[in-house]
Amino acid sequence: MNSCYVSGMEARRAFTVGLVQMPMSADRDENLERAAAHIAAAARAGADLVCLPELFRSRYFCQREDAANFDLAEPIPGPTTRALGKIARAKRLVVIAPIFERRAAGVYHNSAVVLDADGSVAGVYRKMHIPDDPAYYEKYYFTPGDLGFRAFQTRVGRIATLICWDQWYPEGARLAALKGASILFYPTAIGWHPEEKARHGAPQRDAWRTVQRGHAIANGVYVAAVNRVGFEGAPGGRKNGRKGQDGSSGEGIEFWGSSFISDPFGIVVAEASTDHEEILLGRVDPERIEQVRRNWPFLRDRRVDAYGGIESRFLAEPPESGKGARTKKSAHRRMAAG
Amino acid sequence: MNSCYVSGMEARRAFTVGLVQMPMSADRDENLERAAAHIAAAARAGADLVCLPELFRSRYFCQREDAANFDLAEPIPGPTTRALGKIARAKRLVVIAPIFERRAAGVYHNSAVVLDADGSVAGVYRKMHIPDDPAYYEKYYFTPGDLGFRAFQTRVGRIATLICWDQWYPEGARLAALKGASILFYPTAIGWHPEEKARHGAPQRDAWRTVQRGHAIANGVYVAAVNRVGFEGAPGGRKNGRKGQDGSSGEGIEFWGSSFISDPFGIVVAEASTDHEEILLGRVDPERIEQVRRNWPFLRDRRVDAYGGIESRFLAEPPESGKGARTKKSAHRRMAAG
Repeated sequence: MNSCYVSGMEARRAFTVGLVQMPMSADRDENLERAAAHIAAAARAGADLVCLPELFRSRYFCQREDAANFDLAEPIPGPTTRALGKIARAKRLVVIAPIFERRAAGVYHNSAVVLDADGSVAGVYRKMHIPDDPAYYEKYYFTPGDLGFRAFQTRVGRIATLICWDQWYPEGARLAALKGASILFYPTAIGWHPEEKARHGAPQRDAWRTVQRGHAIANGVYVAAVNRVGFEGAPGGRKNGRKGQDGSSGEGIEFWGSSFISDPFGIVVAEASTDHEEILLGRVDPERIEQVRRNWPFLRDRRVDAYGGIESRFLAEPPESGKGARTKKSAHRRMAAG
Repeated sequence: MNSCYVSGMEARRAFTVGLVQMPMSADRDENLERAAAHIAAAARAGADLVCLPELFRSRYFCQREDAANFDLAEPIPGPTTRALGKIARAKRLVVIAPIFERRAAGVYHNSAVVLDADGSVAGVYRKMHIPDDPAYYEKYYFTPGDLGFRAFQTRVGRIATLICWDQWYPEGARLAALKGASILFYPTAIGWHPEEKARHGAPQRDAWRTVQRGHAIANGVYVAAVNRVGFEGAPGGRKNGRKGQDGSSGEGIEFWGSSFISDPFGIVVAEASTDHEEILLGRVDPERIEQVRRNWPFLRDRRVDAYGGIESRFLAEPPESGKGARTKKSAHRRMAAG
């Protein structure tokens, strides 16, 4: 499980990735069978690696806080990794399998298992950035990841996976790229609140795509986002009384698909529909990474001596209000933050 | 000069920024007069802050390495800050004035001075990330900045400036945003090598715009890029034998303009042409920042406990090659980087 040793040797072979964009049913076994069928189809189409969407075994249960949903979790290794490990071995391809991970009683993670082409577990990533906003109550379900940002050595070379909300954080992308990944995968479950779609839908999807293309450009890596499709109603109604961005009440999520692959220069080389089940294929060419990084060598000029503040929550301290004495500590803060 | 004290109080007033997109002549005084006229025009149009392009006093001299160009540098305060400080005071607006700064014999910086609306120097930023690639020989001219990434308190609230090559680095944008800036300015001098434009021009400009829009989205801040326009030939020929991205030889740079303002959701709210001299106006509304950050609260969920690796150059160490003993240090590295 921890075979993610770090290697400076880059794979120079190009390979094909397949992104499975699919809707989820309420039947967990059906979702697994559907995913397995897509992996087999992707293999026939030439994929060397297949990535499934976030939490692909179930509907997006985080629309509601319900302790019974912890029954959906499973260990690693467990039923899903065993089933997909067999397929990975049989088809000789790498599989990224997002799992609702049960680590211990009361310790659950939103994870992604990298299964190597021999069926073994190449490594596990546990979602580091956990969202919580109306209909995405993930802080209730998921303990924040404690394995850090990683890259995994596989049959196709070093690759990284992060998960959904991570895609808004340049730090995660940077660290995965510094660990030698040629491509960052983002298994995802993101969609529109129906009552927001008309007004905010297009800019939301564009922001989501743009920030990830930005990671590709800043790091000179490929980026692949893998989202689900379909409408999922909020089960059991508005238990949490969610409010939309407009302040209106809303129900359910329309997952917006739009899975895509960006090359290391931010060019979208493959993109799926907003509403269809499909397999998106794309090529990852280490030579393209080499050329992009040679011509615009951003990694060379990083100011690693000056990034320490990144580990702070916020750096604009309130001014001395005159209510208290000016302490040495606050004086120091002013200088450090200036 | 160091009045950039850090305040947690946010200005809640909206304000108008004016970006001056202009060509530069070989006459330094003419460039200053032209900039001054644009500042006055922007003031008449309602601007509360005006930003000039990188190194606006001269042609982009970094196309060639020539020690005589150090004569172009000036101190801070100096002739340019005095002239523009007078205008800032007269027009009651903030001015961001990029300066080729002479700090001492042999210590020169690519800097930007923030002049407050009373004409005083609110603060100085010294370019942190220094490029060096064919026709952009900046490492020869500019000592890397030693003031860090900053935000400055001004009449319009807290704003930040970075410079050109900085725009490819998410770390700089993040640190400036954490210091409370509502908008990040990027005075710029970027353009096409003529022989590359047909093949690479569109994706280069799009990558440049996309990575900066990504900073806006990831940080929930406005971003403004301010570029020059016009073709500038390489003076004195190919002293450095530059080669283009195609491997062909090339001469001169066609600066691509395209100055723009992105809102905190990555929406381009104003954009200039690729080739015209113009003043681009845009509104910065702190209420928009408030709404964007409330709805997609990325700053809340940052994993400040897990970003330490950002201060490393690279994290994929070569594997133990079998040539030497496996040392404790290398074993430690494997664990630390995994």
